[in-house]
Amino acid sequence: MSTALKSCFVLIGFILAYMSYLILGALVFSAIERPVEENLKSELNSLKEEFLNLSCINATAFESFLERVLKANKYGVSILENASLRTNWDLASSLFFANTMVTTVGYGHTTPLSDTGKAFSIVYALIGVPFTMLVLTACVQRLMHPLTYGPISVCQRRAGLQPRTASVMHFIVLVLLVVLAFFVVPALVFSAIEETWSFLDAFYFCFISLCTIGLGDFVPGEKPGQQLRGLYKISVMVYLFVGLMFMFLVLRTFHKLADVHGWTAFFQLPSYDADTEDKEPIIEQEPEEESSQTEKSFVQPLDPRSQASYNSINR
Amino acid sequence: MSTALKSCFVLIGFILAYMSYLILGALVFSAIERPVEENLKSELNSLKEEFLNLSCINATAFESFLERVLKANKYGVSILENASLRTNWDLASSLFFANTMVTTVGYGHTTPLSDTGKAFSIVYALIGVPFTMLVLTACVQRLMHPLTYGPISVCQRRAGLQPRTASVMHFIVLVLLVVLAFFVVPALVFSAIEETWSFLDAFYFCFISLCTIGLGDFVPGEKPGQQLRGLYKISVMVYLFVGLMFMFLVLRTFHKLADVHGWTAFFQLPSYDADTEDKEPIIEQEPEEESSQTEKSFVQPLDPRSQASYNSINR
Repeated sequence: MSTALKSCFVLIGFILAYMSYLILGALVFSAIERPVEENLKSELNSLKEEFLNLSCINATAFESFLERVLKANKYGVSILENASLRTNWDLASSLFFANTMVTTVGYGHTTPLSDTGKAFSIVYALIGVPFTMLVLTACVQRLMHPLTYGPISVCQRRAGLQPRTASVMHFIVLVLLVVLAFFVVPALVFSAIEETWSFLDAFYFCFISLCTIGLGDFVPGEKPGQQLRGLYKISVMVYLFVGLMFMFLVLRTFHKLADVHGWTAFFQLPSYDADTEDKEPIIEQEPEEESSQTEKSFVQPLDPRSQASYNSINR
Repeated sequence: MSTALKSCFVLIGFILAYMSYLILGALVFSAIERPVEENLKSELNSLKEEFLNLSCINATAFESFLERVLKANKYGVSILENASLRTNWDLASSLFFANTMVTTVGYGHTTPLSDTGKAFSIVYALIGVPFTMLVLTACVQRLMHPLTYGPISVCQRRAGLQPRTASVMHFIVLVLLVVLAFFVVPALVFSAIEETWSFLDAFYFCFISLCTIGLGDFVPGEKPGQQLRGLYKISVMVYLFVGLMFMFLVLRTFHKLADVHGWTAFFQLPSYDADTEDKEPIIEQEPEEESSQTEKSFVQPLDPRSQASYNSINR
C-alpha cells in the first residue's frame, strides 16, 4: 500500500515539476522573443508603407519587398493588417510553443528569431524532451494495469478466452476507442471551431500532431480575432499531452501483443518485459510458475521462444 | 552462428524494405502533389502580373494580394522569381519529405496541398512511423553490443573499474563522440554549404532535427540555385537516419546507466532488461551468477533494488 502511495506521489511530483518547467519555458521564450518580434513587425510595417508610397511599382523593388515579407513570415511574423495586432509570444502562445517543442511535435508556425532564443531552445529541449518522455512513461506505466493488464485478465477469466485471443480483442477495442476519443471527436471539434478547416483537415491535424510529425500547416487558434485564444491554446496543449499518452499506451500494448504472438522474437527485437514491478499484482496469483519461467528464459537466452513473455504470465 | 546470420539477414531485409517504402512514398507524393503545386504557382504568377499591371496600388487589393501570397507560402509555394523555377515535389524532395514524415521530424517547409495528399500522408505515416521505429530499434539493438556492452566490459576487465564507474565513463565518452560526430561536424559542414546559416543556426538545425522536433525554420538545400540538390537532400536524409540511430543509442545507454545507479527503480519507472538475447555473449562468462541473480529479482519483485539490473551482469 505504501508503495502505491509512493508511486502516486512520484507521479504527482513529476507532473507538477513538468508543468512548472513548461511555464518557466514559456516565460523565458516570451521575454526573449517578444522584443525581437516587435522590431521585425515595425520594420515590416514601415517597409509596407514605404512601398505603398511609391506611385508605380518597380519589379525589382517588388521582388525584394516580397522576399522580406516571406522571410519574416517564415518566423511567424505576418505583414497582414489583421494578423499584426497580436503577438506570437504572449504567455499562452509561448506555453504552446514550449509544449510543442518538448513533446517533439514542433509545428514551426512560430520559431525563435534571436540567437539567444535559438540557444535557449537547444538547452530547453535538451532537458525538456527527456523530461516529457519520463513523465509520459511514468503516466503510461501506471495506466497499463487498469487499461491493459486488467481488461485482458478479466477477458480471460470471465469469457474463458485464450491469452492470444484476449490480447488481440483487447487491442482492437483499445485502438477503436483511442481513434474515436483522440481523432474523430477532436477532429469534429476542431472543424467546428476553425472555420477554414474541413473534417479531413482537422483529422489530418490530429494525426500529424499525435504522431509528433507536426508539419505545422494546420495550427489551431492562429486565425486573427480568435476568441479566448489563451484558453483554446491551453486546451490544445492538454489534448496533445493526453493524446500522446494514449498513443504511447497503444504502442506499449501493441509491443505486448507482439510478444504474445512471438513477433518480437521472430524479428529478433527486444521483447517487452521491462516493467517487472507493474506485473506484480498479476504475478502474485501464480508466483512459482512465473519465477520458474523467467529463470528458464534467462538460462537459455539463445532460444527466442524461451524469452520471458507476456503469455507466460496471464495463464 | 546461424542466429547471427539470421539476425544479419533480418536487418538487411528490414533496411531494404524501408528504403523501398521511402521511394514508394516519394513517387506517390510527387505524383499527387506536383500538379497541384503547378496550378498554385501559375495562379500566383498571374496574380503577380495582374497586380504589377495596376498603375497605382490600392491598399485593400494589396492586402488581399499579400494574403494569397502568404497562404501559398505556407504550403511551400513561393511567389519569388528565382524560387519559382524549381518544384518542391521532384523525386529527391519528395523522398526528403517522406523521410522527414516517417522519422516524425516533420519540418513542414513543404506540406501536401491536395486532400488526396493529406489522406495519403495519414496512411503513409500510419505504416511508416512504426516501420521506422522498428528499423531503428533493430539497428540500435545490434549496435548495443559493440558500442555499449563491449566497451563497458573491456573497461571493467582491462582497467579493473567498478560497473558503475565504467558505465558512467562509457556514457560520457559516447555522448562526447555523438555530439562531435552528429552535431559539431555536421554544423560546420552545413554552415559552410548554406551561405546564410551561422554556426549556431546549423547547430540549432542539427539539434532540432535529431530531437525530431523539426521546426522547419532551417531546412538544408532550399536556397534557389542549390547545386546538386538531389544528392544534397539524400545526404541529409542519411545524416538524419544515422543521427537518429545514434540518438536512440545514447538514450538506451542512458537507460542502462539509470538502471545501474538505481534511478529507474527509485522513480519506479520500467528498468531496461528488454533485450535479453543481446546480453547473451556477456552472460556466457558467468551464467550461474546471472541466472541466480535474475531468479532472485523476479521472486522478490517488490524490492526495487532486487530488480535484474545492468550491474548484476558485468561483475
